Amino acid sequence: MNRITGLFNVRYPIVQAGMIWCSGWELASAVSNAGGLGLIGSGSMYPDVLRDHIRKCKAGTDKPFGVNMPLIYPQMDEIVNIVIEEGVKIVFTSAGNPMKWTGLFHEHGIKVAHVIANVKFARKCEEAGVDAVVAEGFEAGGHNGMEETTTMTLIPMVREAITLPLIAAGGIATGRGMMAAMALGADGVQIGSRFVASAESSGHERFKQSVIRAADGDTALILKKVIPVRLIKNEFYHRVKELENRGASREELMELLGRGRAKLGMFEGDLGEGELEIGQISGLISEIKPAAEIVEEIIAEYDETRKELYERTF
Amino acid sequence: MNRITGLFNVRYPIVQAGMIWCSGWELASAVSNAGGLGLIGSGSMYPDVLRDHIRKCKAGTDKPFGVNMPLIYPQMDEIVNIVIEEGVKIVFTSAGNPMKWTGLFHEHGIKVAHVIANVKFARKCEEAGVDAVVAEGFEAGGHNGMEETTTMTLIPMVREAITLPLIAAGGIATGRGMMAAMALGADGVQIGSRFVASAESSGHERFKQSVIRAADGDTALILKKVIPVRLIKNEFYHRVKELENRGASREELMELLGRGRAKLGMFEGDLGEGELEIGQISGLISEIKPAAEIVEEIIAEYDETRKELYERTF
Repeated sequence: MNRITGLFNVRYPIVQAGMIWCSGWELASAVSNAGGLGLIGSGSMYPDVLRDHIRKCKAGTDKPFGVNMPLIYPQMDEIVNIVIEEGVKIVFTSAGNPMKWTGLFHEHGIKVAHVIANVKFARKCEEAGVDAVVAEGFEAGGHNGMEETTTMTLIPMVREAITLPLIAAGGIATGRGMMAAMALGADGVQIGSRFVASAESSGHERFKQSVIRAADGDTALILKKVIPVRLIKNEFYHRVKELENRGASREELMELLGRGRAKLGMFEGDLGEGELEIGQISGLISEIKPAAEIVEEIIAEYDETRKELYERTF
Repeated sequence: MNRITGLFNVRYPIVQAGMIWCSGWELASAVSNAGGLGLIGSGSMYPDVLRDHIRKCKAGTDKPFGVNMPLIYPQMDEIVNIVIEEGVKIVFTSAGNPMKWTGLFHEHGIKVAHVIANVKFARKCEEAGVDAVVAEGFEAGGHNGMEETTTMTLIPMVREAITLPLIAAGGIATGRGMMAAMALGADGVQIGSRFVASAESSGHERFKQSVIRAADGDTALILKKVIPVRLIKNEFYHRVKELENRGASREELMELLGRGRAKLGMFEGDLGEGELEIGQISGLISEIKPAAEIVEEIIAEYDETRKELYERTF
């Protein structure tokens, strides 16, 4: 047992990131059944859809699972009520102030992890009394911090600043990546991109194929004047980039962005005009596999690496 | 012995990055004497200054040391001749095509490592027949790649693509960071920022103090339309950033950049108007120490971490 497996009562300190359009109950329950911690990504769900996913997840696994919620969600009160009513025991919050909801969750016996991208917010998490911190580096897919601090540098700086259980996120897809995160001071890892390319991911098949095709340099962090997001460089990206290079305003960018770009890309499979959120580590992912196989592979490679590093001399 | 210590005939697979204005013969010989591989950074030296540093370095250590050279240097022929004439046995090249000089260096029994920031150039290194590759992530200080690939994701992708001895750079300052790099598949590490903050670094004392004061988020990669460089966010940075946000052209940026900004900042200690090149990991560096102590600390922490990770269970 370590600080993460003990906290969430799971076998492995591997959290499957709660990702919009990709992580419904099928993926979350598959990861939890495999000994990790599966998360339902509520960010792309209407409240009633979330309730349905929670119920199906409960039916699909008798292991712990959680719900991820961006705190900027417009119907937060409703989402929070559903999570409490349905007896969810773990929530991962992001994109907001952990002070606001942590107390209420704790009153209902719900464990809270909060996602941050800098040391200042890691300290705020400690003040807010959350149970664990997810520190997410610049290489991560989807929404990201403004400071561009990478996993390699963020994890040891957060580790130095706070004592809470620490989950590393961003750039991790393998047992070697997990070992690197643990060496830097993490107690566990959160993995997104690798689970996008899983059989149980609800992302569109064309999106999954674009993830396994991606090589190094195929993603970029853009839209920093709106909200930074890492995605695959497709036609949509190039149009945003052109505007940005011309010094376009937030308003112009918002207009091009429009609504529903993420759904269009990741759920409906429009690889040209959709927003295809994925991390840099997609360059290392080459096959779509069942989530259970992914978890097993990561743990097996972690264990090999542990022995290899111990025996290795200069 | 491993593939890096064997190649360079050093005790530890720790390379001190050849940095402009900071790594003269004092630093390089101190690191080599401590069992690492010290590099003289020729990028900020006139040819006759370089010759002087090489001679002093030979007098200062009987251990292997090398010279780092950006291949865009205007007087490359002269620099190459000096390195050959002075009997230097190791060169690290960067910012150019490794095809051009590797053959000549090899004719003179000189080992060549080349610095890259993406998989494509790692493959070119292999074709060029260099002896080792330095893969440098987005978090590194100074000049950097366009793709923004971080150390956490670049190292495993390069490891998968080529079989050459691999040195990880960017975001590494401690034994834990070194262990993370080794877990990701590196055979050794190149460390810059930590050695900037060494007693033997020829950087200005005010620059060194600004490095140990830096926290997470205090550096940024800018000037992507000219040549990407990571530096401390000072007044100069903010003026560049303002121009960039307005969509300024390469020419406008070149004009603001002017000449001698790096010397002004790092060597003359102008913290406002100078270019203060340093990596993100500066946020973890809090003390100026002798180079030998830095090497010893890194190795001691690496060894502790090795045991800790081996014994750690979930």
